[in-house]
Amino acid sequence: MKRLRLTLAQINPTVGDIRGNTNKIIDYINKAMELDVDIIAFPEMCISGYPPEDLLMKSRFIDENIEALNEIRKYAGDIVVIVGFVDRKDDIYNALAVIYKNEIIDIYHKIFLPNYGVFDEMRYFQTGRVIPVYSIGGVTVGVNICEDIWFPSGPAYKQSLLGAELIININASPYAINKAQFKETMLSTRASDNSAVLAYVNTVGGQDELVFDGRSLIIDQSGEILYRGKAFKEELLTVDLKIDRLSRLHDPRRRAEIRGGHKKWDFEAKNIFIHDKSYKSRQSITYSEPKKISVEEEVFEALVLGTRDYIKKNGFSSVIIGLSGGIDSSVVAAIAVEAIGRDCVKGLFMPSKYTSKESIADVKSLAKNLGIEVFTIGINEIFEDYIYSLRYIFANKLTDTTEENLQARIRGNLMMAYSNKFGSLVLTTGNKSEMSVGYATLYGDMAGGFAVIKDVPKTFIYRLCRWLNERDGVEIIPQNVLVKEPTAELKLNQKDSDSLPPYDELDLVLEAFIEKDCSLEELVSNGMDNETVKKVIGMVNKSEYKRRQSPPGIKITRKAFGRDRRMPITNRYKD
Amino acid sequence: MKRLRLTLAQINPTVGDIRGNTNKIIDYINKAMELDVDIIAFPEMCISGYPPEDLLMKSRFIDENIEALNEIRKYAGDIVVIVGFVDRKDDIYNALAVIYKNEIIDIYHKIFLPNYGVFDEMRYFQTGRVIPVYSIGGVTVGVNICEDIWFPSGPAYKQSLLGAELIININASPYAINKAQFKETMLSTRASDNSAVLAYVNTVGGQDELVFDGRSLIIDQSGEILYRGKAFKEELLTVDLKIDRLSRLHDPRRRAEIRGGHKKWDFEAKNIFIHDKSYKSRQSITYSEPKKISVEEEVFEALVLGTRDYIKKNGFSSVIIGLSGGIDSSVVAAIAVEAIGRDCVKGLFMPSKYTSKESIADVKSLAKNLGIEVFTIGINEIFEDYIYSLRYIFANKLTDTTEENLQARIRGNLMMAYSNKFGSLVLTTGNKSEMSVGYATLYGDMAGGFAVIKDVPKTFIYRLCRWLNERDGVEIIPQNVLVKEPTAELKLNQKDSDSLPPYDELDLVLEAFIEKDCSLEELVSNGMDNETVKKVIGMVNKSEYKRRQSPPGIKITRKAFGRDRRMPITNRYKD
Repeated sequence: MKRLRLTLAQINPTVGDIRGNTNKIIDYINKAMELDVDIIAFPEMCISGYPPEDLLMKSRFIDENIEALNEIRKYAGDIVVIVGFVDRKDDIYNALAVIYKNEIIDIYHKIFLPNYGVFDEMRYFQTGRVIPVYSIGGVTVGVNICEDIWFPSGPAYKQSLLGAELIININASPYAINKAQFKETMLSTRASDNSAVLAYVNTVGGQDELVFDGRSLIIDQSGEILYRGKAFKEELLTVDLKIDRLSRLHDPRRRAEIRGGHKKWDFEAKNIFIHDKSYKSRQSITYSEPKKISVEEEVFEALVLGTRDYIKKNGFSSVIIGLSGGIDSSVVAAIAVEAIGRDCVKGLFMPSKYTSKESIADVKSLAKNLGIEVFTIGINEIFEDYIYSLRYIFANKLTDTTEENLQARIRGNLMMAYSNKFGSLVLTTGNKSEMSVGYATLYGDMAGGFAVIKDVPKTFIYRLCRWLNERDGVEIIPQNVLVKEPTAELKLNQKDSDSLPPYDELDLVLEAFIEKDCSLEELVSNGMDNETVKKVIGMVNKSEYKRRQSPPGIKITRKAFGRDRRMPITNRYKD
Repeated sequence: MKRLRLTLAQINPTVGDIRGNTNKIIDYINKAMELDVDIIAFPEMCISGYPPEDLLMKSRFIDENIEALNEIRKYAGDIVVIVGFVDRKDDIYNALAVIYKNEIIDIYHKIFLPNYGVFDEMRYFQTGRVIPVYSIGGVTVGVNICEDIWFPSGPAYKQSLLGAELIININASPYAINKAQFKETMLSTRASDNSAVLAYVNTVGGQDELVFDGRSLIIDQSGEILYRGKAFKEELLTVDLKIDRLSRLHDPRRRAEIRGGHKKWDFEAKNIFIHDKSYKSRQSITYSEPKKISVEEEVFEALVLGTRDYIKKNGFSSVIIGLSGGIDSSVVAAIAVEAIGRDCVKGLFMPSKYTSKESIADVKSLAKNLGIEVFTIGINEIFEDYIYSLRYIFANKLTDTTEENLQARIRGNLMMAYSNKFGSLVLTTGNKSEMSVGYATLYGDMAGGFAVIKDVPKTFIYRLCRWLNERDGVEIIPQNVLVKEPTAELKLNQKDSDSLPPYDELDLVLEAFIEKDCSLEELVSNGMDNETVKKVIGMVNKSEYKRRQSPPGIKITRKAFGRDRRMPITNRYKD
């Protein structure tokens, strides 16, 4: 029986902030020293932040991140430090360094480079070719990076054949609904397949469209989850591991596999002896299992963190939100208040002649519930002025969506004027259902810096609001907002349902078409209404140009708009 | 001496329009039949259009493109048809089919998949593994796709070792300044290195940010360019090739290489005998060398084609342009008129109290020169209304860029109102220099569907305008527009030079920083002014969020904003 004190530093770096990230890493190393740990592991590319995108094309950027690694090295002392960075050899690599006694003992290059969904790693990196294991405190340890662990025959497998008893996998793995459970299952299988303890450390924090959820994991050789890191929060997850070297030799299936596996083996193995100090008696550490959270809470936390980090990391200290009395702007305001505090959140209410008394009351209730200040500017006169100015050009033309869009764009202008004057970030309030079918006005309600709920379907918005109201047992989203019929209030007696199928139906079609790439034919053969499906697909395809100009927002579903779903605008494909 | 009649079908497909592209391909096959050719080669992925981006995730889309190939097959008759499509085997491939006597004789899978710059082929495709040659009319022919030809040791090299006398390389290769000359040199070297005739066929047409310039080429075994296809136009480039089988055996260096090359050879070779008819006496064909064009003409043609295709392929029939009397909106109007005709181009002039008499006169001259209709709407009253509406919120606040942006956004609203009411596409008029440093108003002058000169630096705009005026010997861009000092006219006596370095200096810094990824340090050590460089880099970095929401525009430089330069918004890197 061998023992190791391991800590997973689930930290929140900022892309491009090499200085800040380095300081944070050194701080955490110092904290780990106080805890007398043997190994500390940091997330993937935490020196540069992830994903740095085309910053990787800048030679100076790579230089600085390597200089930072060399600075971190000096603080490692008696701890084995595992830290993600960008290495440069013949080409550049998504890499990790193993540091001990202030020396870089070895560098590992990521082998499986994801180049799908939101990932573009083949745009930047060369593929790693070497799979080492190390001896740390008598324990044989294999290291690898993120995507590497997703392949049953990947580096962890080879490392286990080389005798690895502990696999450390460092990550920048973005959040999506249901992904955590899927990952736990996969990682648990990976641990038991390889008869090795698996330590999975993940980044936390928001970066443009992505939010990293942390939730680091430590899993034993049999696949049982021993420890879970917190969700959406920085943490130093410190544990004492007991590793039984004999265990694998008692597993006949395992031994058969080793015999078979060796035959196909074409990777170099590197054995590096690091330290072998006996496990001293140290101050005991505590671990408390994070509480289980519902999918609504999980999404809410993802949105709060993504919004807070976008605001803070971009140097803003306050936000402005256009409030309409509808459910979308209400929930965005609630998220913003949770993210940066009520004093930094202002609302702007911009009624027109189509604004109902109900909406006025609902905005008032929301402001009261959240404790935020709301300014009011009516748009009727400005609107009339536009119409007057356009009277000759529009002569003999009927009223149509032009006039509706004009109102939305006047509001967009007022929001941006506020933003320009006070330096507040405009949060937009469109949901995924609207963004999908283009039920939003470009430069109108779509105008702003960050689209908080851009990837949240309308039906899920309702779930989120109900959960929020239940959470603390007080009303946050006014009850009337939850029950009234959705309306854009851009013309008389307008309802969303005049233009769109009911949201529960719409969201089903959208999920199948956007997240699963189902065709019209498949959707109809699955029992969906032909006319509805056709109409919805047509609307989705036709509004790609709007989405291309929309602000970024937080990915929470399997496939979000933006870097995740990349469609041509010029596109005659109808299916 | 063997002879072959070859035609390169330099066609303009539309992404997603499988039906339309298929019809076009069949039309060109029929034309080739009338010319009695032996081989017709179509561009890369011309059945699906290129790049189809995430349409490739749709299973139905792949099915339909394979169905289309099977339809095209039936029209091939006695001609060898080489056509690009998306193949599905275990995975999907960027592929070409060789068709003869209505049968698919073979399918080639692209081996080198570009995944840099504007390309994301590793997101979609699996790598090809087989390099065949065919015997066509007694001539040994190798085929490959686009990027495959860029590598000296790539498929063409292996094919030449297999005896290929003719290499046919099919492309969807986008235009950039100076790329054509570079490509000619590279292709010429490739032909002579491999002692093979090289036939390069390229797509023509615009697709969102890309414009394909055609300019197909036929190069002999010694590297001499025999035939050039037209630039920016569809064409059936038909030639009679004379191929001397003995030539390579007379080249001792060549024979030494074959001996050496065989040793490293690890690709499967496939020999397929196709037809071997003797060269009949046929009606003679004519070829006329396209005239050489200047870089200004080349860029102008690229912008005209890119604009026309964006308009037409997206189903628009008219455009509206905000005219200010400045050089940018003037040249965009000239491009639009060339693209779709004066009757389909309208101008909107929206003077404010800061608009000079000079501007009014310049707009009038431009409209006269181009023969386009221009509407005028003053914005003073609407502006005053906004200011009045904001009076309480803005109380005690000084005038700043807020008021400037507000004017630009009023104009944006009016443009969009016109667009909504008349179904005209809004062309925006910002140049690359402005887009780089963020000297533009989001939702203001940046509002619109297509940003024609987004990738054209301001200094090049002047060259373009002077060239345009010289071309036909009549004034198109009013002379005064060319000589007056640039101004946004958003406040009293404003000049661009109040906020920006002189454009010739600015453009030098921008080219080095954006297109070459030079660091501040490198720029300064190259003799640029430290303060200027620092200021410019700061402005570029700070305005990424604006560019993210800008409409697409035509790439003409080595590195354009958009799919070519992918920067995070949240980014603390300062260099």
